[in-house]
Amino acid sequence: MASITAAICAAPAARLGARRAQRPQTARRAMLRVAASAAVKYDYDNKVFEKELVEFADTKEYIIRGGRDKFSKLPEAFKNIKQVGVIGWGSQAPAQAQNLRDSFQEAGMDTKVVIGLRPDSPSCDEARAVGFTEADGTLGEVFDVISKSDMVVLLISDAAQAKLYPRILAAMKPGSTLGLSHGFLLGVMQNDGVDFRKDINVVLVAPKGMGPSVRRLYEQGKEVNGAGINASFAVHQDATGNAADVAVGWAIGVGAPFAFATTLESEYKSDIYGERAVLLGAVHGIVESLFRRYVGQGMSDIYGERCVILGGVHGVVESLFRRFTRQGMSDDEAFKQSVESITGPITRIISRDGMLGVYNQFSDADKKIFEQAYSASFGPAMDICYEIYEDVACGNEIKSVVNAVERFSRWPMGKIDQTHMWQVGQKVRAERKEDQIPINPFTAGVYIATMMATVQTLQEKGHPYSEICNESIIEAVDSLNPYMHARGVAFMVDNCSYTARLGSRKWAPRFDYILDQQAYVSVDAGTQANPEVIQAFKSHPVHKALAACAAMRPSVDISVGGDNDTTGVGAGAARTEFRSVAATTA
Amino acid sequence: MASITAAICAAPAARLGARRAQRPQTARRAMLRVAASAAVKYDYDNKVFEKELVEFADTKEYIIRGGRDKFSKLPEAFKNIKQVGVIGWGSQAPAQAQNLRDSFQEAGMDTKVVIGLRPDSPSCDEARAVGFTEADGTLGEVFDVISKSDMVVLLISDAAQAKLYPRILAAMKPGSTLGLSHGFLLGVMQNDGVDFRKDINVVLVAPKGMGPSVRRLYEQGKEVNGAGINASFAVHQDATGNAADVAVGWAIGVGAPFAFATTLESEYKSDIYGERAVLLGAVHGIVESLFRRYVGQGMSDIYGERCVILGGVHGVVESLFRRFTRQGMSDDEAFKQSVESITGPITRIISRDGMLGVYNQFSDADKKIFEQAYSASFGPAMDICYEIYEDVACGNEIKSVVNAVERFSRWPMGKIDQTHMWQVGQKVRAERKEDQIPINPFTAGVYIATMMATVQTLQEKGHPYSEICNESIIEAVDSLNPYMHARGVAFMVDNCSYTARLGSRKWAPRFDYILDQQAYVSVDAGTQANPEVIQAFKSHPVHKALAACAAMRPSVDISVGGDNDTTGVGAGAARTEFRSVAATTA
Repeated sequence: MASITAAICAAPAARLGARRAQRPQTARRAMLRVAASAAVKYDYDNKVFEKELVEFADTKEYIIRGGRDKFSKLPEAFKNIKQVGVIGWGSQAPAQAQNLRDSFQEAGMDTKVVIGLRPDSPSCDEARAVGFTEADGTLGEVFDVISKSDMVVLLISDAAQAKLYPRILAAMKPGSTLGLSHGFLLGVMQNDGVDFRKDINVVLVAPKGMGPSVRRLYEQGKEVNGAGINASFAVHQDATGNAADVAVGWAIGVGAPFAFATTLESEYKSDIYGERAVLLGAVHGIVESLFRRYVGQGMSDIYGERCVILGGVHGVVESLFRRFTRQGMSDDEAFKQSVESITGPITRIISRDGMLGVYNQFSDADKKIFEQAYSASFGPAMDICYEIYEDVACGNEIKSVVNAVERFSRWPMGKIDQTHMWQVGQKVRAERKEDQIPINPFTAGVYIATMMATVQTLQEKGHPYSEICNESIIEAVDSLNPYMHARGVAFMVDNCSYTARLGSRKWAPRFDYILDQQAYVSVDAGTQANPEVIQAFKSHPVHKALAACAAMRPSVDISVGGDNDTTGVGAGAARTEFRSVAATTA
Repeated sequence: MASITAAICAAPAARLGARRAQRPQTARRAMLRVAASAAVKYDYDNKVFEKELVEFADTKEYIIRGGRDKFSKLPEAFKNIKQVGVIGWGSQAPAQAQNLRDSFQEAGMDTKVVIGLRPDSPSCDEARAVGFTEADGTLGEVFDVISKSDMVVLLISDAAQAKLYPRILAAMKPGSTLGLSHGFLLGVMQNDGVDFRKDINVVLVAPKGMGPSVRRLYEQGKEVNGAGINASFAVHQDATGNAADVAVGWAIGVGAPFAFATTLESEYKSDIYGERAVLLGAVHGIVESLFRRYVGQGMSDIYGERCVILGGVHGVVESLFRRFTRQGMSDDEAFKQSVESITGPITRIISRDGMLGVYNQFSDADKKIFEQAYSASFGPAMDICYEIYEDVACGNEIKSVVNAVERFSRWPMGKIDQTHMWQVGQKVRAERKEDQIPINPFTAGVYIATMMATVQTLQEKGHPYSEICNESIIEAVDSLNPYMHARGVAFMVDNCSYTARLGSRKWAPRFDYILDQQAYVSVDAGTQANPEVIQAFKSHPVHKALAACAAMRPSVDISVGGDNDTTGVGAGAARTEFRSVAATTA
């Protein structure tokens, strides 16, 4: 989730602490060490760090445990790397550069971390402020740094990578290592029909959190071993024979308490897909469609007829009408029943007790409403999720992003936050009483059906559970939704990376329309829940896998200031994360 | 417009007759013959038919005049073609096959027209009913017919072409001619990185109307020379040295009174783009956003504040509020002010007097509203139009269609016509009083801005005016909008080809959201019209080009029965055009 998490302000993360403490120990027990070397999807043979086989529901995946006690192995992992060039200064770069510098120092290494930026970049001052300077040779011009580094950690924006990669690759030393934190570049190069130089290593470490969290948790980890942000890692090309050592060393060096294996391709597909689906695009489309539904006036003709045919038992009709049709709510109420319900209580319950936790806390009557909404929404959501996934997988989505960025000079991307609905939201948030936000069962049914469609698609497309859980659920309920709760869905959409923003603008309206045209119409026509669909939800292995993932989250919760905190990570977040991609171009 | 026009019922075309008779003769005069061989975009050297250089606003384009007096040249054009195999029996195939058969007969040729279908296709009976039979060797199995034909006119669906083209091409005779009525297949093959066999001709004739119109006007043309549907034509590959003769002969043989030159690439780009923009996708998105705006309750906060700041002059605020903000109209009224206004009077005025005709008939006060809406909508519409065009041009859109069709077995494409808005529409249409439909200046401004954005994008991308006018305006106001007026926008979307339906489902919500998020928000904030944008509209050369195109439309208007006409073309239309693409797969 490199592209979205770049935009997450640390503010709401403070609240996560309390929740995480409540997580049942059963979750931790769900992560079993298994002895046998079962068939696992991704496996890289590193010679330095120990790997463990972990059970995620019905599959097994390798993970590698990090922590400060592993720093002693960093010299071996980085044995031929005397200089790591970190290119860019966006969200990830400040965090990864400082963490690596600290880790190398703690391990007694003389490997230097050098920042590469355009000499006129406004980011130079920020880099100098944390001790990367021209004077001591740790701040230099992009291509000069690249050409002198044994490892290049490329943390400029997707768009900049797409544009600059031929020059960047050409500038690299033979036998050096290219480090990516997102597989986007591979997608671009696949579209362009070109391959990486064969004489370099190409590895990935994708921390599953925004840069400032990566830094702050690492700092906390100095006191408590094991704190940090988990990361996925991959070896795409191994020219030197020790690329896996470097990749895992990098993950541990930036502070990952666990690293799990993936591929560049699997990472970029799940990442770009996830932010278009339930993480950002879908949640936006869902709340637009629900808000409209809830403020809508009048019963649909079809539903009206149905009620008459059914005998028109007045009380039943009334209650069904209030529950299932366009409901004539006030703007404020509709906003609470849609947006607030999702980003507040539904999100908190999923984070703590999983998706089934939301279902289980409903009354029998509300369970029925949830089931009907879930059942009507799951198919349409699958339809769009599959379309997104296949558009990402075949290269269309990456090509569209690259094309779109070229058009920005003529049509800069507009904000979405000025429409009536988001103005209502601003007012509702200002007057919010957290404990009075409703848990609307219809809203929950639509949202969780879309979350499950996001999961199911990734699963059918062969992604490992570590990736599925992260790109469909964890990132949503532990990072993005809390942030949207604090600042608004529209603000979130308007302030993330170009890749994510473009994706949300493209796919939100698709979810909106298909839910309106198919799911709500079906519910209004009185279609009851399909028991098979509900059973598949209840018995889905993802619930167990999510519990296993929960057990691997950092043992120390991030502690950061709120919106008004102008010191530390809070301030850093405000300064560096809401910066457009263009500004972070090296 | 092969893919959309396949779905147009002939019913509303009857009304076009009356209008066309009113067209001023100045339009005809605008089409000047020019002597010099100026630099023209597309030119193919055929040796049989005369070409004319025609002035379209600021450009010149070649056209070739058809008509029955040119049939005498058909033997020369088809000199080595003893059998034309027409593959498929959808919208175009019955018309083109019968027209060619009649033309060959009239020209005293023994060239045979043979239909190729799957032996178990339900279409076989329809082909037999109009005299194509196994007995006389004019109906056969697809690949058998292909292998025995000197020219293969491939009129199966886009999706079927994408799937079957390797077998089809392999079955063709060396030196034979492949005839396409849509360049879609070229897009598919470009995506697949393959090329046509070098030993065959590849030509295109794309009649600018649905199949039944192509047949009915041809029949009328037996009495009145020159009646018919215009067509674009192209020579993509000339293996025999006379491919242009065959292409133009084909256009004239199916009854085109004029043929204008294009390329396969220009045709498929403008066609697929056009149906995603103002022809179908945009008009759908526009009316969804306008309907919602017109029924919306309450003034936006921002606008409210503005009014207070401006002094709150009560009358002004009231009138601005009623005009510019969410207006609290009844459902019926909102439907009339949005959908009915566009598909009824606005469409009729554009057809008769062009886009400026709509503007000119407004009062000064309404002109201001039009200008404000136009000015606010043009930029956002351009943004989406460019995105569509570039997604089509780079192959994304074709790849998405091919992928989507593969998913239909799991998620059949749903209908959109059951939502509240379209139920309102059904009621409004039933009670319609045609002469009481309002010409809403805000609606007109948004719609015409989007039409102009569709035009402007095609122009900037280098398309000739004959193609621009057709794919942005003529097809809309003379075919699609009148049809939507009769049956509804949703019915139109739900009943056209997969390529068009998928496009509309994808892009309608994009236009909807961007208008809502940018155009209406800007209007509600009181932003006045940009005089440059309005001046560019008023002085755009497309107005002249449209007049030139109007002069080249058939001199005889199509005469067909209404919805209840069960004889002739009306019935044919109902039977063959609303058939899904899958059913027409050979």
